[in-house]
Amino acid sequence: MSLIVVGSMAFDAIETPFGKSDKIIGGAATYIAWSASNFTRPIKQISVVGGDFPEEELSSLNARGVELEGVQIKKDEKSFFWSGKYHLDMNSRDTLVTELNVLANFDPVVPESYQGAEYLMLGNLVPAVQLSVIKQLKQRPKLIVMDTMNFWMEVAMDDLKKTIAEVDVLLVNDSEARQLSEEFSLVKAARKIMAMGPKYLIIKKGEHGALLFHGNEVFFAPALPLEEVFDPTGAGDTFAGGFIGHIARTRDISFSNMKTAIIVGSAMASFCVEKFGTHRLKEISRADIDQRIQQFVQLVNFDIELV
Amino acid sequence: MSLIVVGSMAFDAIETPFGKSDKIIGGAATYIAWSASNFTRPIKQISVVGGDFPEEELSSLNARGVELEGVQIKKDEKSFFWSGKYHLDMNSRDTLVTELNVLANFDPVVPESYQGAEYLMLGNLVPAVQLSVIKQLKQRPKLIVMDTMNFWMEVAMDDLKKTIAEVDVLLVNDSEARQLSEEFSLVKAARKIMAMGPKYLIIKKGEHGALLFHGNEVFFAPALPLEEVFDPTGAGDTFAGGFIGHIARTRDISFSNMKTAIIVGSAMASFCVEKFGTHRLKEISRADIDQRIQQFVQLVNFDIELV
Repeated sequence: MSLIVVGSMAFDAIETPFGKSDKIIGGAATYIAWSASNFTRPIKQISVVGGDFPEEELSSLNARGVELEGVQIKKDEKSFFWSGKYHLDMNSRDTLVTELNVLANFDPVVPESYQGAEYLMLGNLVPAVQLSVIKQLKQRPKLIVMDTMNFWMEVAMDDLKKTIAEVDVLLVNDSEARQLSEEFSLVKAARKIMAMGPKYLIIKKGEHGALLFHGNEVFFAPALPLEEVFDPTGAGDTFAGGFIGHIARTRDISFSNMKTAIIVGSAMASFCVEKFGTHRLKEISRADIDQRIQQFVQLVNFDIELV
Repeated sequence: MSLIVVGSMAFDAIETPFGKSDKIIGGAATYIAWSASNFTRPIKQISVVGGDFPEEELSSLNARGVELEGVQIKKDEKSFFWSGKYHLDMNSRDTLVTELNVLANFDPVVPESYQGAEYLMLGNLVPAVQLSVIKQLKQRPKLIVMDTMNFWMEVAMDDLKKTIAEVDVLLVNDSEARQLSEEFSLVKAARKIMAMGPKYLIIKKGEHGALLFHGNEVFFAPALPLEEVFDPTGAGDTFAGGFIGHIARTRDISFSNMKTAIIVGSAMASFCVEKFGTHRLKEISRADIDQRIQQFVQLVNFDIELV
């Protein structure tokens, strides 16, 4: 039940209406690994960091069952750095700084020990890099899940479409689904995007939950109504980590199990936003997670026999 | 199991990105009655129209079990008229024309035959008019549900708060909840609004579904992802009609039954938006409704034993 996770491991500096962080640990693959390792181990990580990336962050991930053979450490370079400022609605943000650093020339190498992995989670990254990992795998994983973002639609649409064509599940948010499909209706957008390759499409809507499309079927998972969203950074990655973590743990790639996986992902994301960065993800126990998942059951549970 | 419905019966002219209507029949109480009469009859309507309101609209409502003794007909005046234009997202709109006409001096009179009704649905209307109906009832209904809108928060906040204090269930949309509570977080907003009187609060989020709050409990109902939203006018009123209609039919005002009622309301609203005005509501059968409600079950149904 091994899982390969690909994505950035980086520094973030975050400003929200409620506070401001120093330069803290971030990156898609970091959030995915912290989230997924609650459900499945080992995780075979593929990423790149600079000499400035803290040793203790790597060892705490390693202690969670995250293998780091596929994480390149470029001693003389700097890690990827992103800085952003969230608007009051927490659904939109401005990028203040993007320093690609080690990501600029990232050429991922899949270690021999990673071959044969059953599940592949491609965190948001240069589409050509995501594709390179797929191509290096000698045996196609049972399920390939890919996250991406609007930025690649603007600068690398051709590469993006090539990569999308190779995956089973694509994750985008609602505005990205509209941008990628050029359709306003999410139902129409989903149909167009699935025609590009993925048999499953997950559209994330932040505080409004997430939709899973497959053929003519659709499933809706709510987000937990929270008193405060402290920092939404990494929520999408954490969602992806919970999703693929549950799939890898249960070894069941049916539509029905994907619905459960989305609830697990939503529960994980609801923790992520409670504190800056990965702080909350490092604190929670399996009991906390089970309790949160039960809140989701309560949230949507209704008795239809009365109708 | 009798239900009193209060609200406007009016003319609308609607422009959407997909089309433009002539002057068609609208009004909160019209939509509520068409929706609720699928579940409970008689409906005891309280409203006011001008001499221009079509006789056949009144008789078709009457044929649905809607009693019109409480509907004042002012022969020499004109019915309320609203004209609006929706933006592409269909969640926001500009009001182009508002002619109050008969609504300007509406003084509702509750007929003697309406006394003793178990349920009261106050559709969106001048808060003082809503309150006047409550005060005229000799016996307090088992459940009073009230809809309102941002306009009254701007021009009649004091009256609005007095009316809100008298009801059991308040219906508002997300931006109205924020405006009324001066809180951005919907969880905090809900707490503040329930402290104003209503034990139950429903926050409608359009295409993103609806939330039901009660004490520390919360329930989330999705909206059905639709290929096309043709005209959202009346969707909130239709939702309210399905909600109160289900409650009146089942005579059960528990939180658990309100959850089911919200699903019924959401199903009704999903029909409303498929055509201009009340057209779609006039076409559908009970079998259509049951089938639509099953789609909602499928939409949110997941198996958590796997977790």
